[in-house]
Amino acid sequence: METVKHVLIVGGGFGGINAAKSLGNAKGIKVTLIDRRNYHLFQPLLYQVAMADLAPADVCVPIREILAKYKNTEVILDEVLGVDFKEKHVVLKSKKINYDYLVLACGSSNQYFKNDHWAPYAPGLKSIENALQIRQKVLSAFERASSSSSPEERRKHLTFVVIGGGPTGVELAGALGEITRYSLAREFSSIDPTSSRIILIEGGKRILSSYPEDLSKKAGRALEELGVQIWTNCLVSDIEQDSVRVGHEHLATSNCIWAAGVGPATINKKIDTDKDRRGTLLVKDNCSLSNFPEVYVIGDQASFKAHTGATLPAIAPVAIQQGKYVGKSIKSRLKGEELAPFKYFDKGQMATIGRNKAILKIGNIKISGFVAWVTWTLVHINFLVGFRNRCSVLFRWVYAYYTRRRSSRIIYTETTPLSEGIKEIEASLKRA
Amino acid sequence: METVKHVLIVGGGFGGINAAKSLGNAKGIKVTLIDRRNYHLFQPLLYQVAMADLAPADVCVPIREILAKYKNTEVILDEVLGVDFKEKHVVLKSKKINYDYLVLACGSSNQYFKNDHWAPYAPGLKSIENALQIRQKVLSAFERASSSSSPEERRKHLTFVVIGGGPTGVELAGALGEITRYSLAREFSSIDPTSSRIILIEGGKRILSSYPEDLSKKAGRALEELGVQIWTNCLVSDIEQDSVRVGHEHLATSNCIWAAGVGPATINKKIDTDKDRRGTLLVKDNCSLSNFPEVYVIGDQASFKAHTGATLPAIAPVAIQQGKYVGKSIKSRLKGEELAPFKYFDKGQMATIGRNKAILKIGNIKISGFVAWVTWTLVHINFLVGFRNRCSVLFRWVYAYYTRRRSSRIIYTETTPLSEGIKEIEASLKRA
Repeated sequence: METVKHVLIVGGGFGGINAAKSLGNAKGIKVTLIDRRNYHLFQPLLYQVAMADLAPADVCVPIREILAKYKNTEVILDEVLGVDFKEKHVVLKSKKINYDYLVLACGSSNQYFKNDHWAPYAPGLKSIENALQIRQKVLSAFERASSSSSPEERRKHLTFVVIGGGPTGVELAGALGEITRYSLAREFSSIDPTSSRIILIEGGKRILSSYPEDLSKKAGRALEELGVQIWTNCLVSDIEQDSVRVGHEHLATSNCIWAAGVGPATINKKIDTDKDRRGTLLVKDNCSLSNFPEVYVIGDQASFKAHTGATLPAIAPVAIQQGKYVGKSIKSRLKGEELAPFKYFDKGQMATIGRNKAILKIGNIKISGFVAWVTWTLVHINFLVGFRNRCSVLFRWVYAYYTRRRSSRIIYTETTPLSEGIKEIEASLKRA
Repeated sequence: METVKHVLIVGGGFGGINAAKSLGNAKGIKVTLIDRRNYHLFQPLLYQVAMADLAPADVCVPIREILAKYKNTEVILDEVLGVDFKEKHVVLKSKKINYDYLVLACGSSNQYFKNDHWAPYAPGLKSIENALQIRQKVLSAFERASSSSSPEERRKHLTFVVIGGGPTGVELAGALGEITRYSLAREFSSIDPTSSRIILIEGGKRILSSYPEDLSKKAGRALEELGVQIWTNCLVSDIEQDSVRVGHEHLATSNCIWAAGVGPATINKKIDTDKDRRGTLLVKDNCSLSNFPEVYVIGDQASFKAHTGATLPAIAPVAIQQGKYVGKSIKSRLKGEELAPFKYFDKGQMATIGRNKAILKIGNIKISGFVAWVTWTLVHINFLVGFRNRCSVLFRWVYAYYTRRRSSRIIYTETTPLSEGIKEIEASLKRA
């Protein structure tokens, strides 16, 4: 009888899920996937949860549901506290687990460039909880404005600052434009939401720097049409509860969103291996660690140098392709073979601006405007996991397109049960 | 020129919304609706949010969106701290507001019969936050069970207790049967969700006591088919974190849901007028207070004695009809006329059990099984506010019907931003 090898996957994002799928029902392999959440999150649409377009359930699928058909796969809801490469085990909150192969796919964190104290005032967009926090901030801003009597207070509540001019920042600023100019335009009697100020702050000399210059210019024009002011070459020097300092300028605002940087996964601090300047784990050309060939690191958590010399960006397609590759690589190795190095296939990139515009770059093809937006829509619907979510999201988009209404305008206002739920789970995991 | 009369409506539930709609764009009337939440909640489907069938956004519609078309209507997000009937004003957190007519439609609270300390361990189903708390409890129970090593612990996590055999308790117990017997049946390798124990506890001698006896028996059979044990004539004597005491029996469980009673609105304590035994406000046959004819109380907040002598139940149709009546009554009075007393038209009642069964009573007609379930489905879709929610809910139901999957299986696991959001709003309202 063959011995069964145990593959342990940490993280149920794009990388982890694809690695697990690729190893699903494979002979001679037992797979365990660990995540602290019970769902896989479709990150590219998370900004729409924050902007009250989609419900959390639209962009989440339970990991157990995705992997239910693989009889060799177990899912554990737990958090990784540490990894011991020499002893080949992972320490969870509830227990230790040994592995023969380890796949680390823990993603990334918000990068505040040593200013972590800004986080409470300028949440980033990493988790469902972040998205709900931002939604809460934005929707209540109008309520607060409508109940203030001083014009300064009102102006402060109606000033929105998005920090970071990458795709996420652009998509958030565009959505804010839609919300203020259309969705809420006629719903208040004491304030005029269309008078809101939206500022997109970018440190570099132009927004969307990974795109060709003409596309980035077109995106800028589309944003300006939605009332967004674009401040390039501007660095944020401080963020407080009610203000943002940009260079020597001082902006009174309580609505700040952070979209300026991708930081290393939190767990990286506890992992003793080679890292790049940002703290991301350096991997070999087959996605494994140089000292521990049975350990793979993929997606945002890894720093992978392509054959072109450039480090691969922290985006979903990289994680998906690496997840699939690693699955194949493990299966090959069990047969005594070694797969050719991982090669990233760039399918292009795209970003939306507001209701019906987008920019798109595939190889040398550049498209902008409505056609790009339709393509963006179809691609995202297609890549969403699960038939249900596809239908639900498509319906909400069609509805929003025709009515310009946001389908998830809920402000939670009671003391929350959620944090207690966590404490309970944690306590129970400790007891177990 | 006519003087404009100011109608102040407190509460955006079924009663308040219908009163506001009825007064919308009426000449000589200015309407202000106050709610602490920015949305109207479709309470009859709230249990499906708790059972991970629907997303919060499916059962919520922003109040501003519903009333946007009425030019004479203003919406304020705030909380009522007190009412002064003599001075004719309402004290909010942020300011005082005067009224000519007041419509109180503040709903009800969970009734723990002087055992409010049970609330944290046995949440009731009143708000979106409650529903998410229950969802959290139920979904994490299986995760906790799957990570415990002791059979006693596992059994405790897989024991669900629903207290109260009215329509809500029956619907919750039926949904739990579906979840354990079907939705999660094959998703765990270390536990068998179908071995879960579900107990429905009822103090009276049968469940669904407001229905005819044969219908209540049929509902009981349908529940038992889903694995639910029904304990009638049983009173809960204590609830703790990990146990429920029923009479002298002791049930080890950490999953308790409260569906046993409707209590008075919290604000009632601060209102000095005649109340019934439960603390609900007594009203005259035109829904107004006897000492203050310009003050109306409707829906769950009111205790209305019908001409038959019975007090009207705390259900949506009563609130809807009273809301409409009060709107008409105010308009009549402004013309110097007085409307005939309010008369409740009983359209019947219904409850679902599990995926495709229901019971239904309309006048003398009694239906059960699949036909009743289809009727239940159509009626609820029809009464949902908003085209978007109707489509979204219908789609999720059809999907769930064919796959038996729950579309909102999200366990929130991070420290939550929600409570901070509230603190922020409160602080800002104080400053304003």
